[in-house]
Amino acid sequence: MAILLTDLTAATMQGGYGLLPDAAIVMDGAIRWIGPRADLPAEYGALPHSALGGRLVTPALIDCHTHIVFGGNRAAEFELRLQGASYEEIARKGGGILSTVTATRAATPEALVAAALPRLDAIMAQGAGTVEIKSGYGLTVADELKLLRAARHLGTLRPVTVTTTHLAAHAIPPEYAGRADAYIDEVAIPSLAAAHAEGLVDAVDAFCEGIAFSPAQVERLFAHARSLGLPVKLHAEQLSDLGGAALAARFGAQSADHLEYLSATGIAAMAASGSVAVILPGAFYTLRETQMPPVAALRAAGVPMAVATDCNPGSSPMTSLPLAMNMACTLFRMTPEEALLGTTAHAARALGLADRGTLAAGQRADLAVWSADHPAELSYRIGAEALHARYIGGRLVA
Amino acid sequence: MAILLTDLTAATMQGGYGLLPDAAIVMDGAIRWIGPRADLPAEYGALPHSALGGRLVTPALIDCHTHIVFGGNRAAEFELRLQGASYEEIARKGGGILSTVTATRAATPEALVAAALPRLDAIMAQGAGTVEIKSGYGLTVADELKLLRAARHLGTLRPVTVTTTHLAAHAIPPEYAGRADAYIDEVAIPSLAAAHAEGLVDAVDAFCEGIAFSPAQVERLFAHARSLGLPVKLHAEQLSDLGGAALAARFGAQSADHLEYLSATGIAAMAASGSVAVILPGAFYTLRETQMPPVAALRAAGVPMAVATDCNPGSSPMTSLPLAMNMACTLFRMTPEEALLGTTAHAARALGLADRGTLAAGQRADLAVWSADHPAELSYRIGAEALHARYIGGRLVA
Ligand SMILES: [Zn+2]
Ligand SMILES: [Zn+2]
Repeated sequence: MAILLTDLTAATMQGGYGLLPDAAIVMDGAIRWIGPRADLPAEYGALPHSALGGRLVTPALIDCHTHIVFGGNRAAEFELRLQGASYEEIARKGGGILSTVTATRAATPEALVAAALPRLDAIMAQGAGTVEIKSGYGLTVADELKLLRAARHLGTLRPVTVTTTHLAAHAIPPEYAGRADAYIDEVAIPSLAAAHAEGLVDAVDAFCEGIAFSPAQVERLFAHARSLGLPVKLHAEQLSDLGGAALAARFGAQSADHLEYLSATGIAAMAASGSVAVILPGAFYTLRETQMPPVAALRAAGVPMAVATDCNPGSSPMTSLPLAMNMACTLFRMTPEEALLGTTAHAARALGLADRGTLAAGQRADLAVWSADHPAELSYRIGAEALHARYIGGRLVA
Repeated sequence: MAILLTDLTAATMQGGYGLLPDAAIVMDGAIRWIGPRADLPAEYGALPHSALGGRLVTPALIDCHTHIVFGGNRAAEFELRLQGASYEEIARKGGGILSTVTATRAATPEALVAAALPRLDAIMAQGAGTVEIKSGYGLTVADELKLLRAARHLGTLRPVTVTTTHLAAHAIPPEYAGRADAYIDEVAIPSLAAAHAEGLVDAVDAFCEGIAFSPAQVERLFAHARSLGLPVKLHAEQLSDLGGAALAARFGAQSADHLEYLSATGIAAMAASGSVAVILPGAFYTLRETQMPPVAALRAAGVPMAVATDCNPGSSPMTSLPLAMNMACTLFRMTPEEALLGTTAHAARALGLADRGTLAAGQRADLAVWSADHPAELSYRIGAEALHARYIGGRLVA
């Protein structure tokens, strides 16, 4: 059943904001027609019709980088650290990423889904219609599969598209300490093969960093992903420059993410490959980092930039894309237009999705309706409750 | 009609979190009894009863420093600045605080209320039950009165307590350029007298800074406030150290606010006077300041610290107290316990309110119910939708 939306300003996100004042949208599961209301073809005039009170309509937002499926809770660790506890004390009391791994391994699939749902709901309540979810806290074949199944299941419980990323090489668990190559051979690649066989993998990811996996180890994983025909993305240059983004670009990566220490060489490689630079200000903010990603150089090189929450229990317990957009502007000097492209058109591209992220005939009818006059307000406001409603696949859902 | 709440953890905010696991609360407009459920007097057992599913209950939050009543919109200015516009260009295009003053003067009382309501609603939706609202964008006697009346009216439209602060000396309008003393004599003091006569003033405030009013000018205003029996508070030491906090302390100020440049002398004066230090991380974040308020020294001196949004269109368009708490922890190294005291018990004290901010028999029954297990989560999470419900004056309101 097609419906007609009027009395709205549309930010089509084609060629920037692509603003259409006083627009009309005809949609069923997909957008059938969009344009100035004055140009609405007569055939659509009799459709069931909602007037949106002059509100702003954007594509439903896309969170292209999250880790929302995990066990346990790191609030106590956050508190301990602010009370002055040393890293040793925190580690002794079971803090750090390994505490999340331990709690994740101990959790049932049902408990993982139940714990992730409020995070997914919060991200949706701030406008998202598509959310990428990474594995990476299991670190055994069985536990990584458990996480990916939970992510797939989450997508069936809510009006949202969930895409799954197998973060096959995230951290080295204690049983592989000093044996990262063995982890790649015995866990990362076998879990990828098994998860792919089960249809659980939309993309493959790794963490390329001194404290995690080397470029050579990532390359072995990516070669395996390529042999399975799976796209790759990479946590790269967050804490140091190991040339991860250039490595990812050689594999035609969908994206390289974080990028605080990205070099000019890395930027050129990304520009040539068409990979998206995923900017994650939540982790920068939480970790009180000072090295900013090279936003101006990425802009100058024409590398598309996305913005995501990076929602995870350690370095970015953030569940609001508009807040990530505000941080991208405030902390990294992205423009509000870049920030909104970063959670719509460019985020879609970072996930390899061509059917969303813009408002145009033929695109999925995933829309966010905002109590705002201009899209700059979405980045300007801090912690506002600006979402009025979402339409997902053409259905009003919130 | 009294009701009984059970199946909850109470953070009473007496002596820190003051946690009561498995607590019960009996309330009508005020709290009649609170304690471990096992100790509930038999007489209350038959009351109408709500089980809260094990959720966390805190005092309803208190935003003790906001400027939410104003005309216009500064999102375009935010965008211009990030597009690289110079301050001159922005000023030429009508940016800065004077653009807000112009739009505020032009706005009808009804328009001011309508514009402020979504901001008030957003602050309430994140747990607030009491919100302070300052004037200060009118800068004429008539326009300051218009703002204070709008603030008072807002408090009648929603289940919330609004307290009004006459920010009598906020900025120097163009017609008084270079004549700040004349502004004090001709606008600040006369508007205070008129507003007080109309019952519109709960406290008196000023902005003591090189770009605003001198200590001597603030002192003249405060002397007038004292003659009217009105409490004072002060924007002090935000951008430089003019000794504002010590001046405020001499007048027994409820609070001194911002305080990034507060000296040891100022801290000692505040400790002696019992004034609250109101910490405002939203402005620090938005302005990308680097000088942090002396949190450790305030803690050591026993000065109570509050945390507020400072919601205003220029330096802190923020409408979430939990986010302000996260920033107070992340940026200023307050503990989550201090942050929650800062939006409950200490925020009440910053407003001179003895009847709220803690959960205890006799206190107003203003409660926030959170989807959280432990109060540290309220500061840990970033941009979460954690509020489950509020009770205001004992009534379930959201
Ligand atoms: Zn990540
Ligand atoms: Zn202020």
